[in-house]
Amino acid sequence: MAPPSPSHVAPLLKDELDIVIPTIRNLDFLEMWRPFLQPYHLIIVQDGDPSKTIRVPEGFDYELYNRNDINKILGPKASCISFKDSACRCFGFLVSKKKYIFTIDDDCFVAKDPSGEEINALAQHIKNLLTPSTPHFFNTLYDPYREGADFVRGYPFSLREGVPTAISHGLWLNIPDYDAPTQLVKPLERNSSSTRYVDAVMTIPKGTLFPMCGMNLAFDRELIGPALYFGLMGDGQPIGRYDDMWAGWCAKVIADHLGLGVKTGLPYIWHSKASNPFVNLKKEYKGIYWQEEIIPFFQSAALPKESKTVQQCYRDLSLLVKEKLGPIDPYFQKLSDEMVTWIEAWEELNPAAK
Amino acid sequence: MAPPSPSHVAPLLKDELDIVIPTIRNLDFLEMWRPFLQPYHLIIVQDGDPSKTIRVPEGFDYELYNRNDINKILGPKASCISFKDSACRCFGFLVSKKKYIFTIDDDCFVAKDPSGEEINALAQHIKNLLTPSTPHFFNTLYDPYREGADFVRGYPFSLREGVPTAISHGLWLNIPDYDAPTQLVKPLERNSSSTRYVDAVMTIPKGTLFPMCGMNLAFDRELIGPALYFGLMGDGQPIGRYDDMWAGWCAKVIADHLGLGVKTGLPYIWHSKASNPFVNLKKEYKGIYWQEEIIPFFQSAALPKESKTVQQCYRDLSLLVKEKLGPIDPYFQKLSDEMVTWIEAWEELNPAAK
Repeated sequence: MAPPSPSHVAPLLKDELDIVIPTIRNLDFLEMWRPFLQPYHLIIVQDGDPSKTIRVPEGFDYELYNRNDINKILGPKASCISFKDSACRCFGFLVSKKKYIFTIDDDCFVAKDPSGEEINALAQHIKNLLTPSTPHFFNTLYDPYREGADFVRGYPFSLREGVPTAISHGLWLNIPDYDAPTQLVKPLERNSSSTRYVDAVMTIPKGTLFPMCGMNLAFDRELIGPALYFGLMGDGQPIGRYDDMWAGWCAKVIADHLGLGVKTGLPYIWHSKASNPFVNLKKEYKGIYWQEEIIPFFQSAALPKESKTVQQCYRDLSLLVKEKLGPIDPYFQKLSDEMVTWIEAWEELNPAAK
Repeated sequence: MAPPSPSHVAPLLKDELDIVIPTIRNLDFLEMWRPFLQPYHLIIVQDGDPSKTIRVPEGFDYELYNRNDINKILGPKASCISFKDSACRCFGFLVSKKKYIFTIDDDCFVAKDPSGEEINALAQHIKNLLTPSTPHFFNTLYDPYREGADFVRGYPFSLREGVPTAISHGLWLNIPDYDAPTQLVKPLERNSSSTRYVDAVMTIPKGTLFPMCGMNLAFDRELIGPALYFGLMGDGQPIGRYDDMWAGWCAKVIADHLGLGVKTGLPYIWHSKASNPFVNLKKEYKGIYWQEEIIPFFQSAALPKESKTVQQCYRDLSLLVKEKLGPIDPYFQKLSDEMVTWIEAWEELNPAAK
């Protein structure tokens, strides 16, 4: 037998995946990820003052966009991209030309599994994305496509092909992704690899919403990209820390409508620092209040049967947002308008997607 | 401080829980479980020839029912209890007077967690049942009521009280619960504690069905008992190995309707032996075929809003079974009739439940 050709040892999906990072304040970040991420192309979207310089260590292949670049590329449509908030990361999704995206925050480091081995988060995300999801029936032994696993007795055979996986949502060791009130109440709670490591991947069932965190997230841009808009947050907006939640609600409703799957669980990253709970409380409080109405809205949002593309579904959703959430606060009318702007920008930069 | 009173060290729910075992062919079974189960009352339901004797080791408090007992107690209503099949276990649910039931098969032994410690399955089931479920929104860090866990950012506060948990579905190390075709294809696949132990409990979301296995199962008899009918299997029936599936489909639809929760995951038991896949294939083949129609039926089964008790819901479901599944095979008409008989028997033996 011939020795394996270089393609066998090459990083998975090297030419089909971009890494999108909202900003890099921490020089150690890329050094730590170098063994796993250096083979890939990075898209860095600077979230604040464009005059500040982001230093990227030697050897990484990257493009960097600051606010001036965003304004230049999108013109008036730049209004849909948040400023001074990590929500700006979705600009990276827009300008990527790849099929897959892995997005990660700069306070997320390489985690170790309970055996002490470093976790290649990206490789696990790719496994999740390249195997089907099973949103129509629950498999009690978790992801049936993992090695050593399968469908259990009583799982209908007609559903075992599954559906294409659009999103892979990874989790966090060390600092869990808690809201400000929970951070305040439990400042010392940690998700340690010795006590809280859950060795599972699972499909979130059809019709069930989940809180999607943007810290450690991968998706198939061709299948679901236009739904991954991170909304209007940060500078000049009444709300923060709900950018990923907004994207998750929209994306899950659209994935369910289009017959696509969303997985959650592995891989873990090591989340190094909790953001300030007092600052977070200020950013979150409208979100905490509004989500009590937003979630029932998404739980009952029905998209027209005729809508067969993510873009069309997203436009439908923007109309529903204006109609049903607009009365809560003028913010949602503006958000609805910018959802449309986002889709226009997507179609402009991705003409084949139109 | 006074030393802890005896009640602090007594087994949890000792006077409120019965252990139901369909039959005991294996003398080691109770010996192995003695440290965990001896404090509880056992109800053993013998599934085959009543002239055979089941030997129960010294020191266990038990009652044993064979077919003659079932016929004597239920009279003509005994027709609803399967013969020569572990489905007969539901007779034990009927005659119990306790609030909680733990049912376990006699080929299930005490499992060890990855640290080598013996797992007290019953204690974990009790934890699952005594903490709420969260069927209305997915928590990505699994059961938020476990120690060291909580609701993640973006989880609506109004849903954090959860709903009462009706069912706790435990899993299996060693031999996974596979159907006959999968057993035939993967005869050597094992769920080992070193590679396939998933340290999680989770709520199965509202509107999602799951394959409920009866090997290692606990439930709140007051909340959901009458829905745990294991159907007509075994002697004289065209189908086997779908008794627990049937109970699971019915119970989940009713739990969803009544706002009750179903958890799955921990605890694991050690499933010692795979049943014969060729025998299983014969028992299962109609089930494998029929489930393709049964599952869409349950997925769309809508119970009347006015039905507020499990019994009423179960009667509603029996009518739907006759109407929608009856045309598939006369078996379902008979099953529908026996579902009603089962509820009548339940109300006769549990007059307060009427």
